[in-house]
Amino acid sequence: MKNVKLTISYDGTNFSGWQIQPNTRTVQGEIEKALQKIMKKEIRINGSGRTDAGVHALGQVANFKADFTIPVNKIAVALNSILPEDIVIKGAEEVDEDFHARYSVKKKKYIYKIYNDKIKNPIYRNYSYFFNRAIDINKLIESSKYFIGKHDFKGFMSSGSYVKDTVRVIYSIDIKKEDKFINLEYTGNGFLYNMVRIITGTLLDVNIGKININRLDEIIKSKDRKNAGHTVPPQGLYLAEVYY
Amino acid sequence: MKNVKLTISYDGTNFSGWQIQPNTRTVQGEIEKALQKIMKKEIRINGSGRTDAGVHALGQVANFKADFTIPVNKIAVALNSILPEDIVIKGAEEVDEDFHARYSVKKKKYIYKIYNDKIKNPIYRNYSYFFNRAIDINKLIESSKYFIGKHDFKGFMSSGSYVKDTVRVIYSIDIKKEDKFINLEYTGNGFLYNMVRIITGTLLDVNIGKININRLDEIIKSKDRKNAGHTVPPQGLYLAEVYY
Repeated sequence: MKNVKLTISYDGTNFSGWQIQPNTRTVQGEIEKALQKIMKKEIRINGSGRTDAGVHALGQVANFKADFTIPVNKIAVALNSILPEDIVIKGAEEVDEDFHARYSVKKKKYIYKIYNDKIKNPIYRNYSYFFNRAIDINKLIESSKYFIGKHDFKGFMSSGSYVKDTVRVIYSIDIKKEDKFINLEYTGNGFLYNMVRIITGTLLDVNIGKININRLDEIIKSKDRKNAGHTVPPQGLYLAEVYY
Repeated sequence: MKNVKLTISYDGTNFSGWQIQPNTRTVQGEIEKALQKIMKKEIRINGSGRTDAGVHALGQVANFKADFTIPVNKIAVALNSILPEDIVIKGAEEVDEDFHARYSVKKKKYIYKIYNDKIKNPIYRNYSYFFNRAIDINKLIESSKYFIGKHDFKGFMSSGSYVKDTVRVIYSIDIKKEDKFINLEYTGNGFLYNMVRIITGTLLDVNIGKININRLDEIIKSKDRKNAGHTVPPQGLYLAEVYY
């Protein structure tokens, strides 16, 4: 029995998210269908975590265990020849039998991409969040610091998730301006459901004066979703890398 | 009778190009439909030129003449509220009666975007040309210089075009590397059908050694399409700006 780790990028625009569901197009569903064609048997893959409809991945990771004869270093090419154009297998490698794409995660990196201009750009409509009010980068960086470190992020989680332990560590939030894009790169030991999108929305609400920066500590400590900012849309979010 | 100039951006992915055609989705067709809703009459627009299926625009220009009561500075907002998400009217302004989006053009700028990496990135598949062989930027710049200036570009035109005068002036080809992207920015007084795509393909063929750089002068002078390089695909091409 081999244990295989896949590194995957996808354009989330035309998927109902990562997780397999009946009668709808999902990333997991497409990959399992392609694996079945190659391996001639049903194979279940474990993703590092789900992504919602519209969310993209530059380095999602999944693993599966199976007996097969095809050389592991041919799997990526074989899958890519079958998969639709909006999924690319970046690599496949054999890993230890105790590797699990979800349980073995040490760190994750997400990027949230904002397109900041007065006028929409149709090219980026599915790949960034269009935000037409002026963004003060220094204030964005200053406000992001309140979220770095170990916190109970319960107030920054959407309903529909039933995790008990809502304490997470954010190691860094790197904010980079490139032309009209502002990219927020979050690295942490794990992220709650919609946590990156709610923190980003909160930072933008602070930026435009809807939330006072001096209240951020109190808002985090309140653990109440109602005190945080708006949830920014899925199309700006990228699962950039998973570390093991 | 007012003469109105529209500046337009669009994502060419889901269009059969600019020019209106029956039973197919075109940019001109969508804009004329939206104008008809606002103006309550049929309006024909003149584009600065056609773009093919899959080709994008950051600053296409069109004009139309009509009598109407809606203030000109409300036209862009009104059109954008009706148009599909892949077309954005960036601006509308009243211009002199002798302005014509096609005949008054002084200069045009096109950008050709190459994604140069070993592995495809699904996010950019409709917005760049994936090229997986190493590109030598200095050689790219050096070979591009053969095309700058006034030349008969007859050999760099696809069939299907019936222009008589195939002499054009390229003022500059600016080549910029940004991460994994290589952008070629062409500015000229006009471009023949597929000219940017054939020149770009020729530059890449020189880069990988399929065409010898010392033959470029001779290839241009031959005016024979067979001697030039391959036509790179439409999804890397952007009509960036039209100058009047």
